[in-house]
Amino acid sequence: MTYKVGLLGLGTVGTGVAKIFQDPAGRHPLLPDIEIARVGVRSLDKQRDVAIASSIVTDDLVAIVSDPEIDVVVEVIGGIEPAKSLILEAIANGKHIVTANKAVIARHGNEIFTAAKQKGVYVMLEAAACGGIPVIQALKQSLGGNRISELTGIVNGTTNYILSRMYFEGADFDATLAEAQQLGYAEADPTADVDGYDAADKMAILASLAFGDRVKLEDIYREGIRSITSADIGYAKELGFTIKLLGIARRTDNKNDIDLEIRVHPTLIPIQHPLANIHGVTNAVRIEGDPIGEVVFSGPGAGAGATASAVVADIINVVAALKSMPNQVNQLMGCSHEHYAKIAPIENTVNQFYARLLTHDKPGVIGDLGTAFGKHCVSLNAILQKNTSHDGLAEIVVVTQRVSEYNFQQAIAAIRQLTTLHSIPTILRVL
Amino acid sequence: MTYKVGLLGLGTVGTGVAKIFQDPAGRHPLLPDIEIARVGVRSLDKQRDVAIASSIVTDDLVAIVSDPEIDVVVEVIGGIEPAKSLILEAIANGKHIVTANKAVIARHGNEIFTAAKQKGVYVMLEAAACGGIPVIQALKQSLGGNRISELTGIVNGTTNYILSRMYFEGADFDATLAEAQQLGYAEADPTADVDGYDAADKMAILASLAFGDRVKLEDIYREGIRSITSADIGYAKELGFTIKLLGIARRTDNKNDIDLEIRVHPTLIPIQHPLANIHGVTNAVRIEGDPIGEVVFSGPGAGAGATASAVVADIINVVAALKSMPNQVNQLMGCSHEHYAKIAPIENTVNQFYARLLTHDKPGVIGDLGTAFGKHCVSLNAILQKNTSHDGLAEIVVVTQRVSEYNFQQAIAAIRQLTTLHSIPTILRVL
Repeated sequence: MTYKVGLLGLGTVGTGVAKIFQDPAGRHPLLPDIEIARVGVRSLDKQRDVAIASSIVTDDLVAIVSDPEIDVVVEVIGGIEPAKSLILEAIANGKHIVTANKAVIARHGNEIFTAAKQKGVYVMLEAAACGGIPVIQALKQSLGGNRISELTGIVNGTTNYILSRMYFEGADFDATLAEAQQLGYAEADPTADVDGYDAADKMAILASLAFGDRVKLEDIYREGIRSITSADIGYAKELGFTIKLLGIARRTDNKNDIDLEIRVHPTLIPIQHPLANIHGVTNAVRIEGDPIGEVVFSGPGAGAGATASAVVADIINVVAALKSMPNQVNQLMGCSHEHYAKIAPIENTVNQFYARLLTHDKPGVIGDLGTAFGKHCVSLNAILQKNTSHDGLAEIVVVTQRVSEYNFQQAIAAIRQLTTLHSIPTILRVL
Repeated sequence: MTYKVGLLGLGTVGTGVAKIFQDPAGRHPLLPDIEIARVGVRSLDKQRDVAIASSIVTDDLVAIVSDPEIDVVVEVIGGIEPAKSLILEAIANGKHIVTANKAVIARHGNEIFTAAKQKGVYVMLEAAACGGIPVIQALKQSLGGNRISELTGIVNGTTNYILSRMYFEGADFDATLAEAQQLGYAEADPTADVDGYDAADKMAILASLAFGDRVKLEDIYREGIRSITSADIGYAKELGFTIKLLGIARRTDNKNDIDLEIRVHPTLIPIQHPLANIHGVTNAVRIEGDPIGEVVFSGPGAGAGATASAVVADIINVVAALKSMPNQVNQLMGCSHEHYAKIAPIENTVNQFYARLLTHDKPGVIGDLGTAFGKHCVSLNAILQKNTSHDGLAEIVVVTQRVSEYNFQQAIAAIRQLTTLHSIPTILRVL
């Protein structure tokens, strides 16, 4: 029996998926049992990089999700609408879903998974976080015996490319972003990447699977990388760190009913940390669990090939399950949790901080700073003051101990009042 | 409905498995549906690190594999016999198998998988290679859309611990092995680890899954790490390499019906390679495929927690499949290939080599070496000669280009005849 796939979207990912099915030799033996039966596109006239019989191509996407012949709908059009409505309509029609759409899943996963559960269909999303890296299946199945305590990741390739170039070449953010845009690694409007929205979407998905609770996107604290300068990268290097845009999710001790901490922000990480040497557009996820300890996955987080690899894996999984058991879902492949995690507000977390301050070069400055930090119970780990004063300003870098975020922010508010302070260009957290 | 597991073995891994089921909170929601119903041990009197009702413990292991109540038999006793016979008998009785036994699978996988296929039962082996790293499921499922071209790995923790210590501390092999034995990282008889047998077992399993062919253990070329000295590590460092015991499996171009190259040997790898920074007992596997590109998995390759994590993942997978579909196997979870891969003999491969030679310190030595290499079409990439002569000997290190293994060995045979040569303490391959 052949299983029929309706492919929504024939951009780079859709094309990559179609190419895999057209050339199954040396790949999974199940591929020839699967047929891309219909392909939905926005424009029928567009030149395509893959040979698809025009008889199966349509611009009527609703016709595909309601076609009784189709078993699995693969959504690779991206964006919120019409993707979300098509997914929900496909589910209502009893289709299984494979999607690469992190934005839809992170925002509307709730509605989608509830509908899928009612209909008894699969919603597979390996491609929605970290592209080809098989971390979703690991979280759903391979690490199932573990109590996951922490998941940290470099889950956005664009920012990692920019930060890697800044690290290796001492270049500044704006120049590096412009270059990344020219090379196609960053979009013309880079907001989703550089301000951490894309990473937050992925962390919502990954944390939800790692900890078994639904996660609301708006509960995730988020900071982007625009404030990072080559000066910060230089100080980080000198202190034995690199700077990465890190997603961090961890189980808390459940005080005050808080389940999790989740955030996305640029982070100083020690150079010997397994995520410190993940460079360029590569993504990586580090998972800590009991009893396994630490596992790290790395690979291409985006791009046609990597995303298509994940989409096809999901299609194979659904088809294998359908072949052996057409009328009942395999519990391991679903996302059955319905409880929303209570996420700690960032003020309630404990962090180590890096701050770069510009002060007027007067006696007593260090004393003023030290007193302000001390008053708010912020102990310091390191202070650097270089002779890099420009315009009569002295640059001072402090690294704190692990302290309450609230206390640190109070100390910073007090320091902002000091007449000896000029400005605080950068505040970062340290892993 | 509760599914019943018969656990064969209550050593560190069996204990780890039992502990996970005794403490399911925060782990996979399927765990409470699974019961460890019987436990088989060699000695009933031994003190155990886990509380198990004595009524379910027996030293009659055959009684467990023939118990009609048992759904899944978990074999964590290790070694060839009685493990192999118990697995086969359990299969004959229609039990599903979860095993951590690489030795049995690498040697008798053939017989075991054929029997399992006939009976329609699962044989799950995530724990048999690289402990907790979920690489088996990735190869069977998550990477199924890819044509895998190469799989390389650090798959033996003991040798990686020894080589890491030698790299960081300049210590010699014998001292480091003795220390590893004291710390429990190496066995009293270290042969299986340091001579590469354990790594070869794992590579047979991984390559078989990566390339979809059965692999005969005896076809895998194997060299251990006993010949490596601190001098070699020092030269490797100077040349920008580290030395790792690497398993290498790659698809060939299919000339002369050869399917694969597979070998295990100490290898110089460039310091920026993703496997170069995997230190201590950690394992890592790098997989290259089309269209995904490169993915790397790393984590604990051995130990109670890691292995138990993989065993429990397999149990969950089997139970989820049984719940949804008790009478038919899911094709993705099986190992259905029956064709044996034809493996290239090592002479037919192309490699880059490192050789350390001791020569009598006479004029013309370098010329003699160069002539011998040149005659056999071996081009050199680098030559190092230091003033480190002891006993009137000069130490010369050569690194070749990528050359035919056959030609290189011919050149070495010719060099051994040179009167200016004293000895060739080390020959290694370069990645």
